[in-house]
Amino acid sequence: MIHLASIFQGGLAPDIVDSSLLATAPSSENASMVLAGVLLSLVFIYLASKLGGELSRLVDLPPVLGELVAGVVVGVSALHLLVFPETGAVAGDSVVMTILQKIAGLNPESIQEVFTAQSEVISVLAEIGVIILLFEIGLESDLRELQKVGSRAAVVAVVGVVAPFVAGTVGLVLVFGMPTIPAVFAGAALTATSIGITSKVLSELGQLKSTEGQIIVGAAVIDDVLGIIVLAVVASLAKTGEVDVVNLIYLIISATAFLLGSIFLGKFFNKSFVAIAEKLQTRGKLVIPALIFAFSMAFLANAIHLEAILGAFAAGLVLDETDKRKELDQQVIPIADILVPIFFVSVGARVDLSVLNPTSADNRQGLVIAAFLIVVAIIGKLITGWAIVGKEPINRLAIGIGMIPRGEVGLVFAGIGAASGVLDKPLQAAIIIMVILTTFVAPPLLRFAFKAESELVEEPVAVDS
Amino acid sequence: MIHLASIFQGGLAPDIVDSSLLATAPSSENASMVLAGVLLSLVFIYLASKLGGELSRLVDLPPVLGELVAGVVVGVSALHLLVFPETGAVAGDSVVMTILQKIAGLNPESIQEVFTAQSEVISVLAEIGVIILLFEIGLESDLRELQKVGSRAAVVAVVGVVAPFVAGTVGLVLVFGMPTIPAVFAGAALTATSIGITSKVLSELGQLKSTEGQIIVGAAVIDDVLGIIVLAVVASLAKTGEVDVVNLIYLIISATAFLLGSIFLGKFFNKSFVAIAEKLQTRGKLVIPALIFAFSMAFLANAIHLEAILGAFAAGLVLDETDKRKELDQQVIPIADILVPIFFVSVGARVDLSVLNPTSADNRQGLVIAAFLIVVAIIGKLITGWAIVGKEPINRLAIGIGMIPRGEVGLVFAGIGAASGVLDKPLQAAIIIMVILTTFVAPPLLRFAFKAESELVEEPVAVDS
Repeated sequence: MIHLASIFQGGLAPDIVDSSLLATAPSSENASMVLAGVLLSLVFIYLASKLGGELSRLVDLPPVLGELVAGVVVGVSALHLLVFPETGAVAGDSVVMTILQKIAGLNPESIQEVFTAQSEVISVLAEIGVIILLFEIGLESDLRELQKVGSRAAVVAVVGVVAPFVAGTVGLVLVFGMPTIPAVFAGAALTATSIGITSKVLSELGQLKSTEGQIIVGAAVIDDVLGIIVLAVVASLAKTGEVDVVNLIYLIISATAFLLGSIFLGKFFNKSFVAIAEKLQTRGKLVIPALIFAFSMAFLANAIHLEAILGAFAAGLVLDETDKRKELDQQVIPIADILVPIFFVSVGARVDLSVLNPTSADNRQGLVIAAFLIVVAIIGKLITGWAIVGKEPINRLAIGIGMIPRGEVGLVFAGIGAASGVLDKPLQAAIIIMVILTTFVAPPLLRFAFKAESELVEEPVAVDS
Repeated sequence: MIHLASIFQGGLAPDIVDSSLLATAPSSENASMVLAGVLLSLVFIYLASKLGGELSRLVDLPPVLGELVAGVVVGVSALHLLVFPETGAVAGDSVVMTILQKIAGLNPESIQEVFTAQSEVISVLAEIGVIILLFEIGLESDLRELQKVGSRAAVVAVVGVVAPFVAGTVGLVLVFGMPTIPAVFAGAALTATSIGITSKVLSELGQLKSTEGQIIVGAAVIDDVLGIIVLAVVASLAKTGEVDVVNLIYLIISATAFLLGSIFLGKFFNKSFVAIAEKLQTRGKLVIPALIFAFSMAFLANAIHLEAILGAFAAGLVLDETDKRKELDQQVIPIADILVPIFFVSVGARVDLSVLNPTSADNRQGLVIAAFLIVVAIIGKLITGWAIVGKEPINRLAIGIGMIPRGEVGLVFAGIGAASGVLDKPLQAAIIIMVILTTFVAPPLLRFAFKAESELVEEPVAVDS
């Protein structure tokens, strides 16, 4: 009877029915609470994304910037409506959990379990959101167009990885007198562009299919792969003091094989996909096979130690080659609409603005290093536009700006560096500040770069009329 | 340095980049593995749902039956591609986890953590799936039509709760010589129709908007509320030996207030919803406000100890009254297409067919009781069609059959009964078998009942020609 009593401690029995579905374990009430927590979190996320996105649009900025800022507002830095255990939060820090606690009167252990599970669900939903985003970007990209800009994208990617890495590492050693290993680590954190943020902004500006847009997306994909290789090198350096060459070769081969394999697959698989989709009769006959393919590719990319989003992007590229493209595009839109905001609001919510507080000495030192890293991060990517040879008219400024946002990979470097003890507090804070600033500064600048160009183009017309 | 080493135990560093997004905690590799597990599980779920649904359609049965059966095949009873900790499974029982283990070489503790988190995510996705399903059903239902059939639906619901409850309880006491409390518990488990399964079949048959369809949905909603009240009564009986009257009154008042409140809300809220949706300009301008409303109502229903799906259904009913209905309908379809199958496949996957194995003595005794419960469960609901007074032509057989599937609530009774020690093994097994059989037998019978009717209608035409 003890079990039953503990289940019913909330005072009202029917909690158990709510949402535990077929659960027969005594943790049914927790399962119901996890669902309640997820629902409430999604309501806050959607409210934030719409408020932020619409306000951003009113002042003529890309909506995704508003979603990121709204994420910061509801996140760990301000309202605490959406907090995550990885940033050090416990159940008591979460407004959602406080509300659930008031409703159900759970004991502290249960509420901590519910908080962990709820955060896990929201995190995975955010990750599926960015997977769907990259799948959609792949669907909107054209493989032939990408191949056309391939060499230029590769130049942009390589310059955009090498320049900030070298300038950052050398500068930290020479100017700040830092030891080599932390300097290399911080330099590496400057390398990888956040493909999610940059491609979303491009899509919002209607520039995804422009030559500049395709170069940026292609370069972001390549530099993501380069970033993973750099991380492997730096991590093995930090761990053993030398580079694990076997691992490095494995990684380079598997990444190349995956990307080339996807393109090859695109040539013969798209016909069988259409044939299968046309035979199906039940609901979801197009979108379910498409997601089976996208999620399989994402899993495969993850399994061979690339990023899941690269697999989803490749899947989108392959399916873009089929006759079903437009129909699929239509159906993916609402799915992306409900999943992608979870990603951007979560990114904002995890940003801890307390690293900007200058009253702490660590932060002050961090702010100085951050100023240096930000300059290197911005200039190191800005120049990539001018690294493209050839005299064709191309918006080099837009390409350079498009590569600026660092986002998630930079924070992963900071996290690993902190966990391994390679990075001290000020350097870690500096990397986080660099990531925040490059992420938030790029969307409005990118809009400006494309707008400046279109005004230049429009001006002669105005003179004519 | 220990932290870094343990992160990299997989042998290959870049795991950490994959999917941990902005995580700065050292559990990044686990986060990446949880995502990988969820992706692989979704691939298996989608494959099963499409294979099962299409095969079912080929042999002229409702697709949802195929999805349920495919769920059983991939679940704990056969392939173990999709198993849940609540059914007693550990990481080693899960094929998905075995695959991840081979890829990443995690230690046993990590893999168990990953398994728990992955199962939690899939469970919540399944729950969100049934919430979206009921939201869609609400959107497709017409509040005025439902009000028209209201009194008939209420009769069907009350008869369908009272008849099996009384017959089941009395039969178990008189025929099987069972003590009162377990008999009452088992009788209560016979009461609540699974609104998810029955409304999905109706929708597939194109009968959701027929008078019969609306009566069944209306009755299922009412009997869900009655089921929750019965559960509260039975649970407090089992716990203290007497009925908690205060709780009971609270529950009846809150359920009534919620349902009437939703209808009232529908009259004035729908205009403001349209006004808001028309002002928005960014992506998801219709579907995001709709989901904010649906998830808020689901959360509210959950918070006042009703089922979350009732809130989603009410939200769908309210939004069905707006001018945006058709556009919203269109956009909800792909979202439902990708989420609803997760629910049905999971329901199938959790069914443990080993309770049907007659070599165990408990099972043999259970099978005898089950045979009795199944007869009561089917007849108790079948008669509801004939409980409707009036002489208008109405497919009474279809209504009775539509109320047969028990699904999740019945299993919740079995789970609570087992946890509290009220139900012994044979009785518990009997309830589970009753739920399985009523769930699987209803879809083809319902199809038959509607088909028989349409053939009767068509025959005179055939004679004429």
